[in-house]
Amino acid sequence: MARVAGKRDDDGSLVRLGQAVRKARKAAGLSQEALADAAEIDRSHMGKIERGERNVSVLNILKIAAALDCPASAIFIDAGM
Amino acid sequence: MARVAGKRDDDGSLVRLGQAVRKARKAAGLSQEALADAAEIDRSHMGKIERGERNVSVLNILKIAAALDCPASAIFIDAGM
Repeated sequence: MARVAGKRDDDGSLVRLGQAVRKARKAAGLSQEALADAAEIDRSHMGKIERGERNVSVLNILKIAAALDCPASAIFIDAGM
Repeated sequence: MARVAGKRDDDGSLVRLGQAVRKARKAAGLSQEALADAAEIDRSHMGKIERGERNVSVLNILKIAAALDCPASAIFIDAGM
């Protein structure tokens, strides 16, 4: 059972969400650094989000989705959530 | 420009998300307290989420969605995000 920033990620949902972010980023042809910069998220934090190591906030998900020019719901759908 | 838990909610997205949570909760016939208890979220925190006063985390959104027996993506779609 992974623990992420003090919270349990019992079913790997943060990992799945991070994988969906990575997939959408690659589909957009962006490097992780370019996405972090476009979303105004710290590059190290973005890496942790993509690896499912952070319990990402809604505002950050919205910033990522905006930088990827896709709705946040699309990321959740791709993550099966 | 609202500030929420140290983050800017420039476009009212947290308010829209909270409204979508409230709408789904009422559709499920649950009181705010019942949803908070089912999602294992503090009742005061749930009220702040519904009012858009908290930058809610993905794990808490997933707990709310699970308690409402709906996918998290449906909440984002209803919030127009």
